[in-house]
Amino acid sequence: MQYPLPIAKLINSFSKLPGIGAKTAARLTFYILEMNENDVTEFAQSLINIKRDLTYCNICGNITDIDPCSICQDETRDRSVVLVVEDSQDVMAMERMHEYDGVYHVLHGVLSPMEGTGPDDINISQLIKRLQEEEIEEVIVATNATAEGEATSMYLSRLIKPAGIKVTRLAHGLAVGSDIEYADEMTLYRAIEGRREL
Amino acid sequence: MQYPLPIAKLINSFSKLPGIGAKTAARLTFYILEMNENDVTEFAQSLINIKRDLTYCNICGNITDIDPCSICQDETRDRSVVLVVEDSQDVMAMERMHEYDGVYHVLHGVLSPMEGTGPDDINISQLIKRLQEEEIEEVIVATNATAEGEATSMYLSRLIKPAGIKVTRLAHGLAVGSDIEYADEMTLYRAIEGRREL
Repeated sequence: MQYPLPIAKLINSFSKLPGIGAKTAARLTFYILEMNENDVTEFAQSLINIKRDLTYCNICGNITDIDPCSICQDETRDRSVVLVVEDSQDVMAMERMHEYDGVYHVLHGVLSPMEGTGPDDINISQLIKRLQEEEIEEVIVATNATAEGEATSMYLSRLIKPAGIKVTRLAHGLAVGSDIEYADEMTLYRAIEGRREL
Repeated sequence: MQYPLPIAKLINSFSKLPGIGAKTAARLTFYILEMNENDVTEFAQSLINIKRDLTYCNICGNITDIDPCSICQDETRDRSVVLVVEDSQDVMAMERMHEYDGVYHVLHGVLSPMEGTGPDDINISQLIKRLQEEEIEEVIVATNATAEGEATSMYLSRLIKPAGIKVTRLAHGLAVGSDIEYADEMTLYRAIEGRREL
């Protein structure tokens, strides 16, 4: 006997998720079997809704259930500062900080010659359009501290600076609470390079 | 900004699954966002179907999409031997072995005084009914090798043996491919106790 079809199908769906192998998929499926019916229906409904109700903000490219997104619509935010990130999850991380009150621009990727991702493949033209049409004074490039993130940051800086707009990059250095002993060489180098007077 | 509502809801649903914390739930949710729409719809449909289409076999208690289940309906199986397991996943494990051709009985639990689970809380009365109505010669008790599994096995043995039915228990000992050096004391004790002549 194989698994009954409804079980096999759910195991198959769970297996498609990252980090979930066949055994975990089976465990989750049998857990679902024991779960309260309302919770399961809600789960199924959420899966359908997330594909149906979400879209990308036509201004900043952030994922949203209303267009323009709630940040672009928020009149209290400072529209002269645009923070550029790789994806929507980075916007959420920044918002969790509760300290930034400018607006965002989501690239949906980074430049990567290795993977064949060029400037036309990510959301750069829309950023340029915003810089031309809106009164923007500073662009904070908050791409990840990876080789691709750095390359994207350099590219944006060369593209935007000539227009007289200030371009800044997030500081690199030791993470708060981290131990110098365990920091990698590049991080230590950046921490020394970016040292500040006390 | 919090997560848009459709995202927050799906993260919440994923978080209810065992072994999935807030961070993993968010990661899975964003993965779903990028997934092909058909796969997501299929996932949602599987969740709904699994609750709607599955039931418990009225003979053996195994989870099934047809009642009686395919094993109980299978005329080629030996109905004189009943293998008693704790849950449906154990039936599937046994079936993967492709060597057992008797039938099953699923208890849906084990006796556990600690958790207040007594004989009336698990599927024992139906087993007794089967033993009275069908021509059963042997009951193989395949509860887990835990304290509760052992206690359940003892209970069943005392209950069934007086009716003149043979009651056996799965062998305990070293797992195939395992290392004596790393075996725990109880397993080694069982392995010596159950030793066989070569």
